[in-house]
Amino acid sequence: MENFDFVNPVRILFGKGKIAELGNEIPKDATVMMTYGGGSIKCNGIYDQVMANLKGFNVLEFGGIEPNPKYETLMKAVELCRRHRVNFLLAVGGGSVLDGAKFIAAATHYEGDPWQMVVCGRAEAIEKAIPLGAVLTLAATGSEMNSGGVISRLSTQEKYAFGSPLLFPRFSILDPTYTYSLPAKQVANGIVDAFVHVTEQYLTYPTQSLVQDRWAEGILQTLIEIGPQAMSEPENYDVRANLMWSCTMALNGIIAVGVPTDWATHLIGHELTALFGLAHGVTLAIVLPRLLMETRSEKKLKLLQYATRVWGISGGSEDNRIGQAIELTENFFRELGIKTRFSEHGIGEEQLLPIVQRFASRRWKIGENRSLDAEKIRKILIQSI
Amino acid sequence: MENFDFVNPVRILFGKGKIAELGNEIPKDATVMMTYGGGSIKCNGIYDQVMANLKGFNVLEFGGIEPNPKYETLMKAVELCRRHRVNFLLAVGGGSVLDGAKFIAAATHYEGDPWQMVVCGRAEAIEKAIPLGAVLTLAATGSEMNSGGVISRLSTQEKYAFGSPLLFPRFSILDPTYTYSLPAKQVANGIVDAFVHVTEQYLTYPTQSLVQDRWAEGILQTLIEIGPQAMSEPENYDVRANLMWSCTMALNGIIAVGVPTDWATHLIGHELTALFGLAHGVTLAIVLPRLLMETRSEKKLKLLQYATRVWGISGGSEDNRIGQAIELTENFFRELGIKTRFSEHGIGEEQLLPIVQRFASRRWKIGENRSLDAEKIRKILIQSI
Repeated sequence: MENFDFVNPVRILFGKGKIAELGNEIPKDATVMMTYGGGSIKCNGIYDQVMANLKGFNVLEFGGIEPNPKYETLMKAVELCRRHRVNFLLAVGGGSVLDGAKFIAAATHYEGDPWQMVVCGRAEAIEKAIPLGAVLTLAATGSEMNSGGVISRLSTQEKYAFGSPLLFPRFSILDPTYTYSLPAKQVANGIVDAFVHVTEQYLTYPTQSLVQDRWAEGILQTLIEIGPQAMSEPENYDVRANLMWSCTMALNGIIAVGVPTDWATHLIGHELTALFGLAHGVTLAIVLPRLLMETRSEKKLKLLQYATRVWGISGGSEDNRIGQAIELTENFFRELGIKTRFSEHGIGEEQLLPIVQRFASRRWKIGENRSLDAEKIRKILIQSI
Repeated sequence: MENFDFVNPVRILFGKGKIAELGNEIPKDATVMMTYGGGSIKCNGIYDQVMANLKGFNVLEFGGIEPNPKYETLMKAVELCRRHRVNFLLAVGGGSVLDGAKFIAAATHYEGDPWQMVVCGRAEAIEKAIPLGAVLTLAATGSEMNSGGVISRLSTQEKYAFGSPLLFPRFSILDPTYTYSLPAKQVANGIVDAFVHVTEQYLTYPTQSLVQDRWAEGILQTLIEIGPQAMSEPENYDVRANLMWSCTMALNGIIAVGVPTDWATHLIGHELTALFGLAHGVTLAIVLPRLLMETRSEKKLKLLQYATRVWGISGGSEDNRIGQAIELTENFFRELGIKTRFSEHGIGEEQLLPIVQRFASRRWKIGENRSLDAEKIRKILIQSI
C-alpha cells in the first residue's frame, strides 16, 4: 500500500424527505445564491421544496447552468455574487450544477482571470471560496462528496478539471426520489460515469491494497446488479438509493487511498466532449473498452482480478479472460442504451485527429504509468470508430 | 435503505514515516498533553519519534493509561489538564489510550461528575472538548477515526460507551510499522475486535443496502485473508498496513449508513470485561458464535449471504450453511490463538449469573430487533461455557 493522506468532511443527509433539514445547514444570516440547471426542477417540484425550506434567508437565483458547465455562463454568476456579496452557494442539480457552483465559489474570490485557476490545475491557486451546499438531483459524478469540478470554455473548446479542499460542500442532501423524473439517457450516462470513476482507481497495477480493491469491486458489482433495473424501474426507491450511494462512494476519495490512479479515459473523454459536445458518460463508454485493450499488458494483474471477482469469469487463458471481461464491460454499457462506437455518433477518423494533435502538442503522457502518448491515444480512438 | 446522516471529518495520515508531519497538525501555540499506556512506546522508539516531532511545543506527559481505561486513572489526567490549561491532547497508543484521551478531552470541560456523561450515553451531554489527535500503535478499535470511546470504572465494575461529534480526532497518524513489536495476543484480539465491529453492522436484517453489504464483506474477507499472516509475519508491511486500514474502516461509520446495527455482542462483552477482566477481543470471540446461533432465525437472510459471499459455502440446507458459517467464524478466531470458551478461561456457570442479573435488573433488550432479554443472554452465556 502506498502512503496517503485522506480527509472528507462533507456532511451527507441521505434519504426521502431530507430536504426538510436544509434550513438548519445554512448560516442564519447568509445571503444565498441558489444555482440550478435547465429548469427541470421547476417542473418536478424540487424547486418549490427547496424554496419552501429557504424561507427566511436572503436568496438570489441563478438558473441556466448547462451540462458541461461553461466558463462564459458561470462568470455571470460570479459577477452577481460579487455585486450582492453572496456568502453561501446552494447548488440544486447534478454534477454540472455542482461543479459550476464550485467554480463560482472559488472564482468570486479569485484575483485575476479565474480561468487561470482552472488551467493551472493547482489547488494552491484557490485561497478562498464561498462555502457551498448541494441538493443532488442526478446520481453520477460524485461532486456532492468531493472537492473537484470540471469546467468547459466555449471560446477555446477546452474542458479541464480543478479542485481545492476549500470546495468540499459543507453538506449534500441526497434524496433518491429526486432522481425519479430524470430522462433515461441521463441515468444511463450517470451509471457509466460512476462505473468508470471506479475503474480509473482500480484497473491499474496491484499495490496490495486489499480493502480498496474489495470496495471498488463492490461498487462495480452493485452498478452491474442494479443498472438495468435503474433504467426500467425509475421509481424503485431502493434501486435509485443504491445507485445514488454507489455514485457518491465512487468518487469521494475513499477507494483511491494508497493506490495508483489512471484517469486517462476521463482525460480523453473531456477532449471528446469539448470538441463534439458528446455527453460525458458517452465518451467514457466509447473510450474505456479500447483503452483497456491497448493497456492490457500493463494492467494485466488487475484485469484478471476484475474478470474473476466482478464478472465471475474462471475458465480460459489469461488473454481470453481479459478479453471476455472487456467485452462484458462494453455490453453492460450497451444494455443501458449507450452507443459505444464513434461511427454510431457520426464521427469518423478525420474528426478525431485534432484530439490526437492536442495531446501531441501538449506532450502529455497519461495513465497510471504515464505510458499513453499521442500515438497510443490515436490507436485507441481509431479502434473505437 | 434507511435514511441516514453521515459525516467523518478525521484527517488520516497513513504510512511509514508519517510521524514527520505531526508538528504541522497541532496549533503552534498549543499546550499539549501527550497520553500513552504502559510504556512500551519507550522501548520501541515511538516515544522518541513523537517527542522529536513535538519540539517547540509546550508538552505535558500522562502515561499509564491501562487496557480498558479506568475512570479513576483518567480523572488524574483531567485534573492536570485543568491545572495546566491544556488545549491539545495527543493520544499515542491503541484504542484504550485513544478512548481515554476522548474521555479526558470531554471531562476536562464537563461541569459536575464526568462519570454522568458516560452513564447517560447522550452525545448532547458533552458541550465542549479539548481538540485531540492520535498516533496509532495498535490496529483494532477504530477509535482513530470515530467519535466514541469506552470507559471502565473500577469501583463499580462498570464499562460503558460514550461519544460526541466533538470527539472526532482532528487527525490520526497510522504508521503500520508502529505495530511490528506488538505482542501476538494483542494483534489477535485486534483482528477479532475489527471482525466483530463489522458483523455488528452487517449480520442483522436486509435493508437493500448493497454497497454497505459489499463493503462489510470486503473487510471480513480481508481480515480472513490476512489474519493468520499478520500473526506469523509481524514485520510484513503490506499485511500490517491492510490490517490497520481494515480496522479503521470497520468502525468509522461508513458501513453503518442506512442499515440497522446489533451491538449485542459488544454489550455482553463489556460486562465480561468489567467483571472478569477478560480482554475485549476475547469476550467477543466467546460470545459471537453462540449469539449468532441463538439469533439465527431473525438473522437468517444475512447469515445465508455471509455464508455464501464471505465463506464461499454453496451446498447444503439453509440450516447447514448457517451452521457451517458460524463454525468457520469460531475456527478463524481459534486459529488466531484465542480461546473461545469460558471453561478455557476458568469461568463456570456460577460466575456468569451476575451478568444475567445485571441485564435483568436494567431490563435491557438488545440487538437490532431488541429481542435479546436476560433469559436469552443467559442461554448464550451458558452455551459458551
